[in-house]
Amino acid sequence: MSSILQQLDTVLAQRKQADPASSYVASLYDKGLDAILKKVGEEAIETIMAAKEGDQEHLVYEVADLWFHTMVLLAAQDLSSQAVLDELARRFGLSGLEEKASRTE
Amino acid sequence: MSSILQQLDTVLAQRKQADPASSYVASLYDKGLDAILKKVGEEAIETIMAAKEGDQEHLVYEVADLWFHTMVLLAAQDLSSQAVLDELARRFGLSGLEEKASRTE
Amino acid sequence: MSSILQQLDTVLAQRKQADPASSYVASLYDKGLDAILKKVGEEAIETIMAAKEGDQEHLVYEVADLWFHTMVLLAAQDLSSQAVLDELARRFGLSGLEEKASRTE
Amino acid sequence: MSSILQQLDTVLAQRKQADPASSYVASLYDKGLDAILKKVGEEAIETIMAAKEGDQEHLVYEVADLWFHTMVLLAAQDLSSQAVLDELARRFGLSGLEEKASRTE
Repeated sequence: MSSILQQLDTVLAQRKQADPASSYVASLYDKGLDAILKKVGEEAIETIMAAKEGDQEHLVYEVADLWFHTMVLLAAQDLSSQAVLDELARRFGLSGLEEKASRTE
Repeated sequence: MSSILQQLDTVLAQRKQADPASSYVASLYDKGLDAILKKVGEEAIETIMAAKEGDQEHLVYEVADLWFHTMVLLAAQDLSSQAVLDELARRFGLSGLEEKASRTE
Repeated sequence: MSSILQQLDTVLAQRKQADPASSYVASLYDKGLDAILKKVGEEAIETIMAAKEGDQEHLVYEVADLWFHTMVLLAAQDLSSQAVLDELARRFGLSGLEEKASRTE
Repeated sequence: MSSILQQLDTVLAQRKQADPASSYVASLYDKGLDAILKKVGEEAIETIMAAKEGDQEHLVYEVADLWFHTMVLLAAQDLSSQAVLDELARRFGLSGLEEKASRTE
């Protein structure tokens, strides 16, 4: 298990009780689901744009932003990155990546 | 470090040498960057749609798809999820989530 | 009023009665709202990617795809492009583009 | 030809000479292509979210925003909505909507 993802999950869960004025994440929770989803969408677009530019450092930065905001989304729904890792392990352990191929398109 | 993410990184790197007909991931690499980016965009949209429906299981499934395809994107650029975890740790370790708030918008 | 948009609206409304096997648009209606929304999202991403490449002809092609699929979306909801043109005229006529500036962000 | 789209094209072209502080559109041109593309992406996501909510008035509003920002994008590239209408007419006139079906997927 990823200790940084675990630590982030813990912090993101704690921020749900925090004053919206006290942190960026608390303010996102306070704005509600649509505001969080807009951020997820924005970060996906910025990831795509960074990849088109071929700037590796920028790409990593935007993917980190994207993962971070999906973790905020999960926390807002009382979920965590563990559920995502479990789902990836389930797919991977069951039959490897080919499972994905068989179900997609 | 997340062992499932590490395992996936290893597999995704190996698939870069594979016959495009042999796996979904190898076929994505073969189609090129734009095909991978379209999948990242599609999975982001499906994540947003699942969240709007309020179906937690579906949401986890789509976030797993999104993370998976960003990992394919990273692998295609000779990067890995470790770079993303390092970036998250850097932000988190330096100054916590508030660092994010100060730089956003 | 745009005659091509009007013609398209008429055709798109007619296709709602058509056999899904008979046309692309009828098959999209049959697949349902989520399938149409995924296409809208895909075409938006392809528009962004075409613009990043700086290929004007490709950009026009993708924007046409994007407008087309938003028109399918409108038709699926018993709306048409006329409602969009009316909304643009309302904003534009009322106070010009500055109205937009004052309400955005 | 759509008179509101023509009027908008004219205004959008004029704003390219305007002081960025004088209008929303002039400020978007000044921020550059990536800022415009982020707005196109955001409006696509807001269109999808509005459609998921089933609110027709909100949907029309967001599609108007999306079309508006694609027109800003076209203007920034010295193009206009006329090119998009011509492309739609070409597809539609040539062989109708079935042309689309044959080329997609």
